[in-house]
Amino acid sequence: MRRRKKPGSKEKLLSFKQYVTEHPGAYREHWSDKWFGNNNPIHLELGAGRAKFSVELARQNPDINYIAVEKKEEVILYGVRMAHELGLKNIAFGWFDIQNIEEIFGPGEISQIYLNFSDPWPKNRHYKRRLTYRDFLKKYAAITKPDSWVHFKTDNEVLFEFTLNETADLRLRQREISLDLHGRSGKENIITTDYEEKYIAQGIHIYRMEFDLDTLRE
Amino acid sequence: MRRRKKPGSKEKLLSFKQYVTEHPGAYREHWSDKWFGNNNPIHLELGAGRAKFSVELARQNPDINYIAVEKKEEVILYGVRMAHELGLKNIAFGWFDIQNIEEIFGPGEISQIYLNFSDPWPKNRHYKRRLTYRDFLKKYAAITKPDSWVHFKTDNEVLFEFTLNETADLRLRQREISLDLHGRSGKENIITTDYEEKYIAQGIHIYRMEFDLDTLRE
Repeated sequence: MRRRKKPGSKEKLLSFKQYVTEHPGAYREHWSDKWFGNNNPIHLELGAGRAKFSVELARQNPDINYIAVEKKEEVILYGVRMAHELGLKNIAFGWFDIQNIEEIFGPGEISQIYLNFSDPWPKNRHYKRRLTYRDFLKKYAAITKPDSWVHFKTDNEVLFEFTLNETADLRLRQREISLDLHGRSGKENIITTDYEEKYIAQGIHIYRMEFDLDTLRE
Repeated sequence: MRRRKKPGSKEKLLSFKQYVTEHPGAYREHWSDKWFGNNNPIHLELGAGRAKFSVELARQNPDINYIAVEKKEEVILYGVRMAHELGLKNIAFGWFDIQNIEEIFGPGEISQIYLNFSDPWPKNRHYKRRLTYRDFLKKYAAITKPDSWVHFKTDNEVLFEFTLNETADLRLRQREISLDLHGRSGKENIITTDYEEKYIAQGIHIYRMEFDLDTLRE
């Protein structure tokens, strides 16, 4: 069921001026100096939902700046409120369409990208909307530094298979491929999203991989 | 349950002289001229079991030579008998350990490799026995022509995940990755193995991918 838009979400969201701007394009190539006021690396989460994941990372890693992007204002508002309550200074929230990402960030401005439980668009005819479709990957390449990795996690088999094939076709480096992240992985301290905790409880497999974008920048 | 060895299997197997030799190493670099008597490409199935898959391919493609390798003589005997009944002239059966494959085939002698439902060796400590472990892949590279593809199919998640990571680490080209071959694939005329038909009936997912070996030959 689609969440009904709450009236006034936009106004509420924009009232948190420390965390959100209505004109993110104004900071293009200047997120470090004009927004965060330091030269720490910037990590980007795309399709962040309530942004629990980025908020938790920001809390754990004060020397990294995070930007969580989500176009539904009533959803991202949760993350903004969490960050505000925690008094975090190393996180911002992007409220815009990922299609326009190159208007928001300049070349090499981003160090890592996280994609967690992106909308799978499972119907074949919608594959161009998937956030790991090659046109999106090329946009990500345009805004990241060399040797940046995309950290990709999903419970959706169709989307994971698609992503394996897109990254294979484009000859991107892949690593840390898991078909059952929580079932067999020896990893500790995996930060989970809201969705993920629900899936784990239900025994649903989580797929995960990392890939870089260097081939797309050559 | 491990199949008990039937007495006399070896003798029966070797009695089919048109299909099996006790000394396959004697044909190294001469499978085309001395065994098959033509220059058609040679496709190899490793861990072929009863070899229904290779027998069916041989029946459908008279201009390709097939060699189905399986070290258990009482198992491969089934395939030999099928080939004999069908009167096939473009198939041979290799009865040897895949570890020794470089003693049986010379450089570039093979054009394609099939791995179907290989023993998964699911315990971590046994990973070196998996037929997609890098030491095996290097052996395959040594006996195949440039641009040869390995066609890999399994129902085992651990083995498939391992193979994705091995091929990614080695920077091998990958293609046609499927996490549910029979569930979503639009492919027709997929030739199935005995195992596979049982799995499909039970709704078990079949994983599939292809990878080449060129990077290992550079």
